[in-house]
Amino acid sequence: MASLPRRALLAATAAAAQTPSPEKRHIGLLVYPGFYLPDLVGPWAVWDGMPNTQLHFIWKQAGPIVKTGPGINIEAGTTFGNCPADLTVLFVPGGTAGTVKAMEDAETREFLAHAGARARWVTSVCTGSLVLGAAGLLKGYKATTHWVAHEVLADLGATPVKARIVQDRNRISGGGVTAGLDFGLAVAAQLMDVNYAKLAQLTLEYDPQPPFQAGSPEKAGAVLTAQGRSMFKGFVAGARRAALRSKA
Amino acid sequence: MASLPRRALLAATAAAAQTPSPEKRHIGLLVYPGFYLPDLVGPWAVWDGMPNTQLHFIWKQAGPIVKTGPGINIEAGTTFGNCPADLTVLFVPGGTAGTVKAMEDAETREFLAHAGARARWVTSVCTGSLVLGAAGLLKGYKATTHWVAHEVLADLGATPVKARIVQDRNRISGGGVTAGLDFGLAVAAQLMDVNYAKLAQLTLEYDPQPPFQAGSPEKAGAVLTAQGRSMFKGFVAGARRAALRSKA
Repeated sequence: MASLPRRALLAATAAAAQTPSPEKRHIGLLVYPGFYLPDLVGPWAVWDGMPNTQLHFIWKQAGPIVKTGPGINIEAGTTFGNCPADLTVLFVPGGTAGTVKAMEDAETREFLAHAGARARWVTSVCTGSLVLGAAGLLKGYKATTHWVAHEVLADLGATPVKARIVQDRNRISGGGVTAGLDFGLAVAAQLMDVNYAKLAQLTLEYDPQPPFQAGSPEKAGAVLTAQGRSMFKGFVAGARRAALRSKA
Repeated sequence: MASLPRRALLAATAAAAQTPSPEKRHIGLLVYPGFYLPDLVGPWAVWDGMPNTQLHFIWKQAGPIVKTGPGINIEAGTTFGNCPADLTVLFVPGGTAGTVKAMEDAETREFLAHAGARARWVTSVCTGSLVLGAAGLLKGYKATTHWVAHEVLADLGATPVKARIVQDRNRISGGGVTAGLDFGLAVAAQLMDVNYAKLAQLTLEYDPQPPFQAGSPEKAGAVLTAQGRSMFKGFVAGARRAALRSKA
């Protein structure tokens, strides 16, 4: 559902309950060419309209359109240069070829290292954690990623954990793609409270009833898992190369 | 994960298994100003890369950008005029104010009535079913929609059913927003087979583990449900007015 009525109501509710001068939350979502839109849309849907909160689509230059798929374009409104210094949440979505390029890009790594050092929460969904890792932000931290890419996390000095959501101190990572919804709700509960997260869950009618049980390698079985792994073999090899180079 | 490697593998797999000259599938997704992107992204993620299948973002004129949120733009590549006559799937996502406008728009209703009469499957997620209904496509059919809007379906001559996915003959509708994933997988199984749907589920790591249980009015309880209902009160009133007018 679109965010206007929700925004208005929630802002009014929050205004009534606010402390006199609450600090505005800034949530920065890195949008890079080729990121995978569904990784971002789950958390975005949960966070959009959160009272006293500004969402920023961040890329090198503002305005230009970041292509994320045929006919789907994201416009960055915030740049590496003018991004608020103290983000409440820094968020990085995943992808495949574009994600490897982001891991390899010095300017992106530098921005993330800087913003991540000051952000209250440093977060990712899917292979977004590999970009955080390439920026040095997951060394010594537990984290998760898409199930095909756990070994890359280890290459980056992180401890890969197989879980839907992994929190280690102020790092919060979600698993592959659709974990973004579970992740987004967990983060919303941290930022606001459980009741707010539940209201978001209700308005998004997130009462999952998958018609099949194949959402993890364990549930899908060996044949489908091998097929899935072979689909992303080239990506994983590229991400491992980028991970090793990012240490140099 | 991005679709390129997946696409290549699946196309190769399908080519090996194909009958000599299979009919190409055309899936048409209506993108109208103000539609709610998360309603579309679930099914899109499942269907994108499906072998022998072309996805079309459809709007009145090609090219121009349809705004679906701050900084999020969809480019329609197919128009009401040049849309393939026999769509395999016609799909309509929901929204709030933009959805009411789409229900009220004669050109949109006419296109949907025409395309829907010839499509193999006529489908929707969330309040997208209200737009189908305004085009006369749900009269005498069981259907579902976002939980706040079931009464509007009745106004449109449909029989509202509380379920995650409702199929009645060739009409398939999904519930609110996130039902799009469950819906998308069910449709993929119809178009391809269960194994394909399971592979899509695995690559999207759709193994939901919501941190809270509040995704339906029953689970969320009376207080949150009343809050959610009041957030969409204006939308529901507008949709009911549009539903009544669409019969004239």
